[in-house]
Amino acid sequence: MIKVPAAREFSALEKNYLFTEVRRKTQKFLTENGGEVINLGVGDVAFPLPPVVVEAMVKATLEMGDNARFKGYPPEGGYPFLKEAIAGRYLKRGVKIDADEIFIGDGAKSDTSSFPDIFGRADVLITDPVYPVYADSSVLRGNRVTFVRGNKQNRFLPSPRGVEKKPYLIFLCSPNNPSGAAYGHDGLKEWVDFALETGSALLFDAAYSAFAGVGVPSSVFEIDGARECCAEFGSFSKSAGFTGLRCSWTVVPKELKCRKSQVSALWKRRQSVKFNGVSYVIQRAAEAALSERGITECGPAVEIYKKNAAAFTAFFKARGIWHTGGELSPYVWIECPKNLSSVEFFNGLLSGCRVVGTPGSGFGKAGEGFFRFSGFATENAAAEAVRRFERSDLFR
Amino acid sequence: MIKVPAAREFSALEKNYLFTEVRRKTQKFLTENGGEVINLGVGDVAFPLPPVVVEAMVKATLEMGDNARFKGYPPEGGYPFLKEAIAGRYLKRGVKIDADEIFIGDGAKSDTSSFPDIFGRADVLITDPVYPVYADSSVLRGNRVTFVRGNKQNRFLPSPRGVEKKPYLIFLCSPNNPSGAAYGHDGLKEWVDFALETGSALLFDAAYSAFAGVGVPSSVFEIDGARECCAEFGSFSKSAGFTGLRCSWTVVPKELKCRKSQVSALWKRRQSVKFNGVSYVIQRAAEAALSERGITECGPAVEIYKKNAAAFTAFFKARGIWHTGGELSPYVWIECPKNLSSVEFFNGLLSGCRVVGTPGSGFGKAGEGFFRFSGFATENAAAEAVRRFERSDLFR
Repeated sequence: MIKVPAAREFSALEKNYLFTEVRRKTQKFLTENGGEVINLGVGDVAFPLPPVVVEAMVKATLEMGDNARFKGYPPEGGYPFLKEAIAGRYLKRGVKIDADEIFIGDGAKSDTSSFPDIFGRADVLITDPVYPVYADSSVLRGNRVTFVRGNKQNRFLPSPRGVEKKPYLIFLCSPNNPSGAAYGHDGLKEWVDFALETGSALLFDAAYSAFAGVGVPSSVFEIDGARECCAEFGSFSKSAGFTGLRCSWTVVPKELKCRKSQVSALWKRRQSVKFNGVSYVIQRAAEAALSERGITECGPAVEIYKKNAAAFTAFFKARGIWHTGGELSPYVWIECPKNLSSVEFFNGLLSGCRVVGTPGSGFGKAGEGFFRFSGFATENAAAEAVRRFERSDLFR
Repeated sequence: MIKVPAAREFSALEKNYLFTEVRRKTQKFLTENGGEVINLGVGDVAFPLPPVVVEAMVKATLEMGDNARFKGYPPEGGYPFLKEAIAGRYLKRGVKIDADEIFIGDGAKSDTSSFPDIFGRADVLITDPVYPVYADSSVLRGNRVTFVRGNKQNRFLPSPRGVEKKPYLIFLCSPNNPSGAAYGHDGLKEWVDFALETGSALLFDAAYSAFAGVGVPSSVFEIDGARECCAEFGSFSKSAGFTGLRCSWTVVPKELKCRKSQVSALWKRRQSVKFNGVSYVIQRAAEAALSERGITECGPAVEIYKKNAAAFTAFFKARGIWHTGGELSPYVWIECPKNLSSVEFFNGLLSGCRVVGTPGSGFGKAGEGFFRFSGFATENAAAEAVRRFERSDLFR
């Protein structure tokens, strides 16, 4: 037996990661009952990689097998071709980011959970309900977490008004996971202004930016002053179907300084100790997803996910069930009918409709009594889910 | 400006990661002087991926583009097919590891630097000279580091004799990076016994196990008692040319317990918060490298790296220069001739021979006055390097 103690922070976590637990319960149900379920739980992709991405990967793989063209360790921070493609993506949206402000990672989970490593023990400000990784990784880091609660009154778009003014690491995700709600320009500006006023770092998770529409910022850098207080995390998972490939990026603007240190230098140094980069083949895949053809070929899946979310929304609206999201987001967030708790509703939905969703309580205290439906499904699966909802007593 | 302070641990690190610094100096030399250099510095691969790996990746990529066969998020801890292939690799060497004791990662750097996250602040015991990542990540974690010095007397195979007896996280790498020295069965057993006696966790880095030969354990689990005190890190980087693909594994035996916790459960929980797995395509590539055909096709590169190291060794022997490694390792470790410091020798070698190596001092205090040559090069490059050594005044 090892006498070095386990990190005590682990005891403050739930036993299982939320989606591990959802998977476990689903498996148990299937083992006991047989048959199939429709999975609207974890936000995993429902469609294969588009041809342009597949072609780029095959080409890059053949290069890796070629004596004159193979690649070894990727350059620190990522290949210039991908960083430039991402900078180009921002520029199209009117946001100027330099390629050397971009750092390639293997997923927004890794990036968002590791970025706080470069800061000392800190106060962390997190909206609730929230992607569990921000809170769990803050707990593991030994940071103190303050939650700003979302609720029906603020339509799950809490503002920093009333929050004690001191320097925080702020996590913000918009369009939001899990609520699907998205800040408009003014709502996001309130957060940026709060960060500037308090000397906070605003860590903006833009993993769902492909779903943002007119009037909704797809990047925090659309807001004045953000370059002095924000870093941004982007992902290919949902926009280009990369959940099974693993590629992401972090934007750390030159103006972002932490006392005497440039934040980008700290992040670079942290990554040089704990990360050896993303495969050349995957970086070429990501580059292809950002090409003109890539944008054309990745679009339809995003549209289907949106349509699915819209179909769920239409049903809930017809039944008078309180809901948000689903328009600028693949997620629909509802108030559980009949005053059911999140887990009661999860169980009822699984046994009654054979549909898996995610209990809102898994995303934080403010999520109790609410439930997340993911639009990441085929059109057929989503339509069948709606038919089952229609037949079910749960929504009456 | 952000008022959240930077983690104070960063100020205890060197400004740049060792190999970043070597690359910077090399670039500076090339900018000022033009021409080319032979790179025997960073241990990067010199050959393309073997055909069996390329074929497996193309096949997996086409699956990812196929509506019936694409994959989303990889299963936590890795795909069973790869875990079973790795278990099979151990079994061939007479070591029984269960597939569910194996966790797939994106590189031994990530795995070795992150594994200590599951323990509380600890005393870390590290041999010196050493792969800088163990020490740097320990510093970032806020752990206290004790070094056990390698030297000419112990042939850079320090033993735990004389070390204060208390529970440590012990990092051990054999065949060793940077010294190329490899523990025999008895030498490694001393470390395992020390870990058992002190309640330490021995974190064994087997990244160079493909170079271990007869009489040298290629896994710490060849030693009695290791399952109660050891975890092991393996990598495809050097054995199968995966530096540009990124795949690794960690073995955490069921018997490994940390007071009331199973260490594997802690590692699984840590990874569920901070990592989302390795691409399906890369895991298929790794599986292919472990197949019969993969072993046959990966072998020649390893043999060339060994031959290169042997050619360097023959030269140093002929010149009466003290050296170790180079037989069971791709690395040769020499005492700098003429009492030069590691950095003086680096500079002399770069300007005099246009050969890049790695200053021993970059691997720790005990490395001062020593120097690492990497056999990761083509045969032609290694032969040309030896010719330049022969003509140089540095070795006279």
